[in-house]
Amino acid sequence: MTGSQDQLTVGLLGAGSVGSQVARTLVEERELISARVGVDVRLVGVAVRDTEAPRDWRIPGELLTTDAEELVDRVDVVVELIGGMEPAASLITRALSRGAAVVTGNKALLAARGAELTAIAAEHGAPLLYEASVAGAIPILRPIQESLSGDRITKIMGIVNGTTNYILDQMDSTGASFDSALLEAQRLGYAEADPTADVEGHDAAAKAAILGNLAFHSPFTIDDVHCEGIREVTAGDIEAAGASGYVIKLLAIAETRAGDDGESGAVLRVHPTLLPRHHPLASVRGAFNAVFVVAENAGELMFYGQGAGGRPTSSAVLGDLVTAARQLRTGSVTAPAGPSAQQALPAMSIDQALTQYYIDMTVEDREGVIAEIARVFADHHVSIESMRQPGAVSLEGEVEATGDDGVTVQIVTHVAQERAQRDTVEALRTLQVVESIDSVIRVDVDR
Amino acid sequence: MTGSQDQLTVGLLGAGSVGSQVARTLVEERELISARVGVDVRLVGVAVRDTEAPRDWRIPGELLTTDAEELVDRVDVVVELIGGMEPAASLITRALSRGAAVVTGNKALLAARGAELTAIAAEHGAPLLYEASVAGAIPILRPIQESLSGDRITKIMGIVNGTTNYILDQMDSTGASFDSALLEAQRLGYAEADPTADVEGHDAAAKAAILGNLAFHSPFTIDDVHCEGIREVTAGDIEAAGASGYVIKLLAIAETRAGDDGESGAVLRVHPTLLPRHHPLASVRGAFNAVFVVAENAGELMFYGQGAGGRPTSSAVLGDLVTAARQLRTGSVTAPAGPSAQQALPAMSIDQALTQYYIDMTVEDREGVIAEIARVFADHHVSIESMRQPGAVSLEGEVEATGDDGVTVQIVTHVAQERAQRDTVEALRTLQVVESIDSVIRVDVDR
Repeated sequence: MTGSQDQLTVGLLGAGSVGSQVARTLVEERELISARVGVDVRLVGVAVRDTEAPRDWRIPGELLTTDAEELVDRVDVVVELIGGMEPAASLITRALSRGAAVVTGNKALLAARGAELTAIAAEHGAPLLYEASVAGAIPILRPIQESLSGDRITKIMGIVNGTTNYILDQMDSTGASFDSALLEAQRLGYAEADPTADVEGHDAAAKAAILGNLAFHSPFTIDDVHCEGIREVTAGDIEAAGASGYVIKLLAIAETRAGDDGESGAVLRVHPTLLPRHHPLASVRGAFNAVFVVAENAGELMFYGQGAGGRPTSSAVLGDLVTAARQLRTGSVTAPAGPSAQQALPAMSIDQALTQYYIDMTVEDREGVIAEIARVFADHHVSIESMRQPGAVSLEGEVEATGDDGVTVQIVTHVAQERAQRDTVEALRTLQVVESIDSVIRVDVDR
Repeated sequence: MTGSQDQLTVGLLGAGSVGSQVARTLVEERELISARVGVDVRLVGVAVRDTEAPRDWRIPGELLTTDAEELVDRVDVVVELIGGMEPAASLITRALSRGAAVVTGNKALLAARGAELTAIAAEHGAPLLYEASVAGAIPILRPIQESLSGDRITKIMGIVNGTTNYILDQMDSTGASFDSALLEAQRLGYAEADPTADVEGHDAAAKAAILGNLAFHSPFTIDDVHCEGIREVTAGDIEAAGASGYVIKLLAIAETRAGDDGESGAVLRVHPTLLPRHHPLASVRGAFNAVFVVAENAGELMFYGQGAGGRPTSSAVLGDLVTAARQLRTGSVTAPAGPSAQQALPAMSIDQALTQYYIDMTVEDREGVIAEIARVFADHHVSIESMRQPGAVSLEGEVEATGDDGVTVQIVTHVAQERAQRDTVEALRTLQVVESIDSVIRVDVDR
């Protein structure tokens, strides 16, 4: 502790919606927070770009400063809520290098340079905690690092982006198009004016990297994550999925996988996924988040709660702050794991993932078509779990046309390598009897 | 560390289904566990009553001993999985007193003497961890103690007993009676030959005490928990509840409450509870467990997973073991909170809880009956949220008889003090127009 032994000082970088709430709690609930830590905890400064800007909570003027470096150099705990790469990275490095604890919710930075920051923290014996970076208020990183430290996590599937979950949920419940659901989300403040990071899956990909990193003790970055967004999901996809008993969710998935050569690795991916309606993740509505974890001994676990917003996210930040302060108070940082615990699994291409495909296509309305299609699947060693012709009497009987141009066929494949699934779809596209491939979405029935 | 600085030794007390699995993982996955801790972790002994007894996993003969005290005296980490009061309490005290870490899943002991054991652990700087004591594999105690340490938990509602959840779920989905659902649970191994502890709610009450203790930083014991089991829940109750959009769950509830005198306290209770079908806890099926937590900033959180069984519970034990071993390795126990953090809320009687009642009764089939009943509620300042007469055309119109003896009326009250709710029911019983009170179950719509 740089101050007196009876007090821990906190410096806050950034005062947006989360930062304002953290400042408010540190001031208004100082007694509670101090009691939880075991010594007096005092907020001594809040670094902002503009001290006059309006904020969710009016921070006392004497706490505000524009000199973030000066603040970082005089506190025991730095709470970084600026976001982005710089100056956040430099300020965090500066704090850790002098042994100060750092609490941050900066998912983009952690997904890009997490291993580097963790190494700096370990070198200086400084706590670095970032529960708020994934799934807002939901305790998920600490359970992975500590509660499941005696188990082997095999798969994580998370609804970790509230914006896209809200949009997909709206499309599902009201039949809205993607564009109108996005507009509604923007109107309600669930989506930003520029929704790219959410809608294209980049935000979820950063979280997939962080989750995979902790679950598999390996230094993944966002570049290791295969990423597809939800912009191409249509109202028709959702309607067809619903009719087959599925809901569409944007999932961040991290899983271990034995490769072709017997070496194991991890596949990290973000993409729209069909889940059976009875799956615990399927009922996660609106802007809520949830993370589903499968471990060898524990089996299936799910963690559910609010994934964004000033107050919920501040809860995660303050929990980390209390935990970090307790570590400083007792003079020891119990780093979750030394380098010896690194499994250092390599990141594998999505080509090696085991996936299931849902394929919706329009085919010619004549005898023998189904046989031709089935042949393509067999040639690629992908087997068909179910085939459905909406409106048809039976697959083998007379086919009822759904339009002038052909009939609709919906196929769900069995589990096979992603590469084989994709090749199958490409081969179907070249088939003369296939008029169009209308929708291809991965399915996960893993429970 | 009592042994060499490069190794931590573990002694296991008890080798039932959980203990056998813990032993197996420590032997077969020694490299993984050691890597996670950062030093070699070695199981050096397993104390059992009968070294020849058959077990789920064949523990190497040289590890088995019948001398538990001798084992406790020579290891760094003691894993207590004997259960019950003695000799567990003496062995745990003995271990903590010499600074050894203790990991236990002994809910009965913790619910009775948790404060005492925690004090002994703190005095000797010894880790005492017991994640496995509540909700099996689900990480819930550590999230409460650490992740939510910067927040104020206001309510916890848990499905923490798989046996009763299985029975209620069977009754709900098949229409079975309590007795036949219990028999089925016993046949499948979900219920013990003597199901008293589960069915009467005692097991859930122990967990309510532990959850309340950690959430509210107060030394509650099982004696502070109001406890009602599920033996009186009938197939008729479940059918009527289902028709009104509810499911019945046995919940362990711990919540803060401002008392009549303005002093705040906590109410701990276990009883069958009606939940709306859309509540996250309502869809927790079979032998699964889930804990729903409400905190001021975090809002609503839910933790879901397997609540019992050797493998799932061993995951929680091993997570605690790794965490405790890391603390020993780094030479410091970051006790979650010193005495200064104790809120020390008093335990309040259930009379002071705010509850809602569902009341199902048979009343005389004549005009003016509803007015008489409504008068009783008004007299007790309990307002009626909804009233339903199954089969009746309308509440004020002609009443259709459901039997020779009268008509059924189902009432859900608004929130009021438990005492007022109970007094209302007592007054209804004395009303001449009320032929019988057929069912009284508390409702929770809190979300």
